[in-house]
This record gives sequence, structure tokens and C-alpha cells, in this order.
Amino acid sequence: MKREIGIGILGLGTVGTGIARLLTENQSLIAKRLGATLTIKRAADLDIERDRGVRFADGVLTTEPFDVIKDPNIDIILELIGGKEIALELINAAIESGKHVVTANKALLAEKGIEIFQKAAAANVNIAFEPSVGGCMPIVKTLRESLAGNRIQSISGILNGTCNYILTKITEERSTFADALAEAQAHGYAEADPGLDVDGLDTAHKLAIISALAYGMELNFSDIYVEGISGITPMDIEFAEQCGYSIKLLAITKYDEHEDTVEVRIHPTMIPDANPLSKVDGTLNAVTISGDAVGDMMLYGHGAGMMPTASAVLSDIVDIARSILSGGGMRVPMLSFQMANIRKIAVRPIDEISTHYYFRFSALDSPGVLSKISGILGDHGISIKSVHQIERELDGAVPIFMLTHSAREAEVKSALDKISALDVITDEPVLIRIEENKN
Amino acid sequence: MKREIGIGILGLGTVGTGIARLLTENQSLIAKRLGATLTIKRAADLDIERDRGVRFADGVLTTEPFDVIKDPNIDIILELIGGKEIALELINAAIESGKHVVTANKALLAEKGIEIFQKAAAANVNIAFEPSVGGCMPIVKTLRESLAGNRIQSISGILNGTCNYILTKITEERSTFADALAEAQAHGYAEADPGLDVDGLDTAHKLAIISALAYGMELNFSDIYVEGISGITPMDIEFAEQCGYSIKLLAITKYDEHEDTVEVRIHPTMIPDANPLSKVDGTLNAVTISGDAVGDMMLYGHGAGMMPTASAVLSDIVDIARSILSGGGMRVPMLSFQMANIRKIAVRPIDEISTHYYFRFSALDSPGVLSKISGILGDHGISIKSVHQIERELDGAVPIFMLTHSAREAEVKSALDKISALDVITDEPVLIRIEENKN
Repeated sequence: MKREIGIGILGLGTVGTGIARLLTENQSLIAKRLGATLTIKRAADLDIERDRGVRFADGVLTTEPFDVIKDPNIDIILELIGGKEIALELINAAIESGKHVVTANKALLAEKGIEIFQKAAAANVNIAFEPSVGGCMPIVKTLRESLAGNRIQSISGILNGTCNYILTKITEERSTFADALAEAQAHGYAEADPGLDVDGLDTAHKLAIISALAYGMELNFSDIYVEGISGITPMDIEFAEQCGYSIKLLAITKYDEHEDTVEVRIHPTMIPDANPLSKVDGTLNAVTISGDAVGDMMLYGHGAGMMPTASAVLSDIVDIARSILSGGGMRVPMLSFQMANIRKIAVRPIDEISTHYYFRFSALDSPGVLSKISGILGDHGISIKSVHQIERELDGAVPIFMLTHSAREAEVKSALDKISALDVITDEPVLIRIEENKN
Repeated sequence: MKREIGIGILGLGTVGTGIARLLTENQSLIAKRLGATLTIKRAADLDIERDRGVRFADGVLTTEPFDVIKDPNIDIILELIGGKEIALELINAAIESGKHVVTANKALLAEKGIEIFQKAAAANVNIAFEPSVGGCMPIVKTLRESLAGNRIQSISGILNGTCNYILTKITEERSTFADALAEAQAHGYAEADPGLDVDGLDTAHKLAIISALAYGMELNFSDIYVEGISGITPMDIEFAEQCGYSIKLLAITKYDEHEDTVEVRIHPTMIPDANPLSKVDGTLNAVTISGDAVGDMMLYGHGAGMMPTASAVLSDIVDIARSILSGGGMRVPMLSFQMANIRKIAVRPIDEISTHYYFRFSALDSPGVLSKISGILGDHGISIKSVHQIERELDGAVPIFMLTHSAREAEVKSALDKISALDVITDEPVLIRIEENKN
């Protein structure tokens, strides 16, 4: 029986270096669990001179990724380069060489996943991707294996540490979005170009993967409704707090069994303090999964970072190694469902969802304003739960805060357009969706 | 290729009925994931007349467990009878018949596990036990698979819903332990004989299993220090709250790499509000796992109950079915480490642990009391962090609350014995251990 599994690394950035460290430092521990040794045979990076604090054996480092892919002693390729075109080319080459692949490339999987998985299935190799979603949290494994007996009903999660750090800062220090972002950048929690994170795209990539696994649907990145956090102000957070809510960038997916449709959306969301996600602060991530048998369960941990992500890569390596060692081949379908059972499920357009809303209007402090606003809302069938006015003037206007009962997004938008056009309204209305607890 | 997996159920109690429901209601969904059908071939219970709300096919029900074990169409036996002697006999018979077993029997595994696992390994059958620990939370899978690359450093968890419900009641309503227990019994959250839960034994069974998986050590049920919750009073909880702590029945296991020893203990524990376990209320369970790569991660969900536990049974069934279907045999070692690498690790006696403490003394309201108490503590090298006296008299005595810095348990006990013998002390001192956050 084969007692050594050869590993090839493509990309020695943060995660690649982390996995090299983990494979080196914990090699004998891992062997005691696995019953075999995991050995880095080759590792490719453009820069193979820099000291990364890891000792590679002679001849392991190369600048040529195809040397890694073609090495006959390598069983598993780690694609940790990121980006789309080159990464796709390398993954395809690995599949053609009959190598299994572990990748953290959520953007590529969200956009090109179905082709990659089909190609891999045809070649009988595995594409593993636990590190692409939620860092160390075993979201992929939990959905594919632990919850295999459940109808997944909904999932909601905080899946981007940068956004959660920024929102936590605004909450704790009443700082502006710009100041909180600058602080995140100073700590290395946000990129110089923060758009991928703060505009919600990174979260959307992850949610595309999660939704596919949950319902056996084709990845549908372009159907996801995405709204980032740059419009969140301390005033909205303060009001939310007073009413017992936190504001988080939530990734939400829900399956409607009767309509056979899904909601897949990412936007700043007010969640009540009783929801454990409201306590997930700073760079931490968490995800709540609701299934018909398990009820609600939550995973919580570091969603990014060198070693947490490396831990997830290693979990995939060990899984594939176990299949190689036991001769079991493809055990768990890559997308949770058998390929033949994966289908398109219609994504409900954002205009057709119904939820509770928070509105903030900036209005002139004149009599009759509230009557006009509530009249328009009433005309659209939007029922107001509570209204709060404070006496504080801002740029000659006063803020009016409102919470609604459940309303349809299309009606809400139409009503806000009309309210926005009123003479007494001085600025664009603010809208934040609310996820109330189910019970 | 085999496309049907035969299931045999021993015991149609709560969990057995739940799994029968899940296998029936979600059969086609599970088949879409698994690529094969799971079919209940036989189910044994003493009472096969009662209507359980599940339809069994003709001839499936029997009162004779050995009919199930011997049925050649059955691949996987679910041992859901509980208890020790008969369950052990049935599991042994199943192993001898070459059947895989899924069991929720934590007491049996904690006490006889190593024999059972050795016997199963020799027969090349699997004993799966995700439902034995933490209900729907994938603790076993996370430790054995997702964290395979990590040195596990410590685990702490709330693993008994009955105790957590009672402590939550005392916290929220300032009720006594007896009243809270009666309420738990009225809601069906506690047994008529509540000892297994409230004395911490159920938690200890689970912690024995978790520790074995975490460190590759032989199950050591009898070495676990166990203290239940019956001594917890509203007064202690109120004081804890004022200082920013909650009191939970915590299962704690820590590995000391330098000494090569483990701590394995269960007792009421004060944890700071910043610890996410402090927010886990009611019958919910949660476990925090700390590893060198992942840092701290938490699983959170329903630790018991018909359907959450059935979901965990089903996850094990699907795992075994996948191994049968792929021809992969024993993939993941049952106790996380290869059998040859499982060893005895010394458990540190409770007297040798060091932690922070909370004390409550009942003393006569006379001058010099505090000086006597603090003198004795000082003589034992116990450093006081804060002292709080309140003016409220109880049975002619006043309570004195103290928080200490880190101290050794043996010194603490010796000091408390001496303090207890003072004339001015009117009742046994109360001691609650504190787990401070690491950072």
C-alpha cells in the first residue's frame, strides 16, 4: 500500500506558505492520524529566493508551475495562485494529468465552477475547495457530509472578515465608513483596493458555492443580488442598537420548496440581538445553517488568515489522501449532489423578496411630513411597525427612522421613489433590510 | 455497483423513531446526494405495536434484535438501545457478523470503547458515533477530518442541554436549583432521575470521547474529574454577573505538550462575557476547539433531541454507505489516530491543576474576619484579585466574595479547609473555578 502522498504547491503566497509550514511542522502528527506521510515534492512561485521561514528540500522550489503539474510523484496539486485565467489553465492541466486539486479560488469556482467540476468528474479526479469558503470553518464538509440527511432550508453568514471588522469599528467607535476602512487597511485587514471585500463580491463568490452545495443547484454567481457596506453610517447603527439590532453584511440564501425558487442575496442586514450572528465581531466569521432535522446550527471561527486557511487546505489534502490510500476513489460528490441531479433552480429577483425594512428619511422639520410619507407607504401596502423622530438637525433636516412589517421589495422601491420626490425630503432615503428571528 | 444499502435499527425510542422518519421522509433527497438508496430492512423493539407516526414496510418490525443483526441484506446496524450490557452484546454480535455499527451510546463508548474499537478494527468494520457527542454538531467529524492537520491544544464545551437549561433558568429568574430542575422536568428536558445529567456524568462520557479523538489517547472515563451543578445558587450567579461572568457546566480538556499530560475535567465554571460560550443559553450546546493552525473555532447547535440526533446518525450512515459504495473500506481511523498510535496519556489530577478561583465565604459580621481569611490564603501562596463584601445578612452571617489570580488546586483546598475551621466562618466555603480568556 502506498504510504507517501506527494503534494505539489502552486503559489507560495500567504496560504501557500502557511500550508508549507503546517506540512513541515506537523508532519509526524499528521502521519499518526493518516497512516501515511504527506511530502511536498515541488512548489512553484515566481519568487523562489525570498525567505518565507520554511525550509524546502533541495530541488523542491521552481518558477515553472508545469514542472509541478507534470511531476509523476505528485498526487495532489494545491492551486493557491488566485486570479482566474492562469489558475483555470493550471487546474485544467492538473485534471488532464490525472492529479487531484485543492483550491482556495472562490472567484474562479463561483464563475467557472460547473465546467471545472464536470471536467474533473469525467477524469475521475477530485477538486476540493474547503479553503475557498469560511477559512477554517468546515462549511463544505458540514453541508456535504454532516447534513447529508437534511433538507437545507436557509443559510445566513458573515463571510468576510474585512467587512465585519469595519462594521464592528463603526459600531464600537461610531467612526465613519471611510475612517473604519482606513483603520482596517492600516491593520492589514483590507486591501489597498478594498472593492472586492467592501462591495460584497468576495462574499458573493462564497455564497454562490454555498448555495450550490446546499440545494444541488448550478452555481449562479451572476444571479446573486449584492450590496456592499459603504453606505452604512454611525447614525443607522446607533438607531439599530437602540432597537436591539446589529448591522452585519449578511450572506443569505433560502429555498422555497413550494415555489422551487431560491433567494441568494448579500446586503447590510439588521439582525436582532438574540441572533447569535449579532455577537460575531471583528474579523471573525460565522454561518448559521438551518435544516429540517438539525434545526439551526452555527459554525464560528477565523474566516481567513494564513494558518486557519492552511488548516482547511490540509483537511482537503487528508481527505483526498485517505481516498487514495483506501483505493476508494471519488466518495463524496464535489457539489454535494450526484452530478446527474444538479439542476438549475430559479433565483428569485430581489424585487420579489419580502422582508422587514428599516428606512431613514431626511426631511424638513415641517408639519405634515410624516403624514405624507406614511400615506405613500400605505398606498403601497407597506405597514409601519414603528416611527421614531429625533430633534437633532443635520444640514437643515431632521432624520425620521421607520421599521416596517414584512413588505415586498418592489413595492418598497416604488414607495421610496415617490417619497424621495417630495419637496420636504432633502436626501436619498436609506433602506436596510431586516432578518427577524424565525421564532 | 451496489445501489441499495440495508439499514437495521435496534431500538425505536426517540432517536430510533427520528431516524426512521428521516430515512423515510428524505429518502429521495438522500439518494440524490448519495447515489444510492438507504432502506430500513429490519427494526427491532420490545414494543412493535405502538404508533410512532412512521410507516414501516411489512415484515420490517421485530421484537428480536438478533433477527436484525443476522439479516444478510443489512449492511449497517444502528444501536439505539442504550444501556451497557445488552448494547455491548449486540454491538459485539454485529461486529462478528461483519456489519458496520452506528451508535449514540456515549456511556458504553466512554467505558468500553477501546475494546470495541479494537475488535471492530480487527474485523474491518466501522463503529461510527457522531450522535454520541453533541447531537447535530459535527464534533467527531470536525476533530477527525477537518482538523487533521492541527495540534489540538484545548477544547471546552457545553455538552448537556439539561444542565444548561437549569443554569439559564437560575440566571434569568434567580430561581433555586431545585425549582429550575423541577421546571426542566416539567418541560421534558430532565429525566425523573436527573443524576446522569445534573451530576455531570453524561458530560463526562462525552468528554472522554472528545479527549480520545483530540489527542490520540485511550479513553479514560474514570480519570475524569466531575462536579455537577446542584450546588449553584442564585447568589453566586448574581455575583458572577456583576463581575462580567456567566456560570456554565463546562467540559474542559487541555493538552500540555511539555509535560505530555492532559487535563480532563467537568465542573461549574465562571466564564467571561467575551467568551462566546457565555451566550449559549437554554438547551443549546456548543463547543470551542483550539488548534495550533485554526486558532479557536466553535460549533453551536442542538445537542440532543429526536431530529438533531437523527441527523447525526444519518451523517454516519451516509459516510459508511459511501465507503461501501466506493469500495474504500476503513478510511478514517475510528479514534482519529491510527490504532498503533493510540497511547495512554497521563491525566493530571485535579489537585495539580492551576486556575483562577471564585470563593464565597459565609462569615460572622465581626472585625478581623477578612484579615484571617486573607492571611490563610497568603500563607498558601494564593493571591487575591478582588474582595467584595455586601451588607446583606443571611442566617446571621454575611457573604464575602473573592476572586483570585491563578492558584494551584491543592493549595486552594488546603487553605479552604483551614478557613472552614475558623470560628468566624459559619458555613462551608463555596468554590467555583474560572476560565479566563487566553488573550
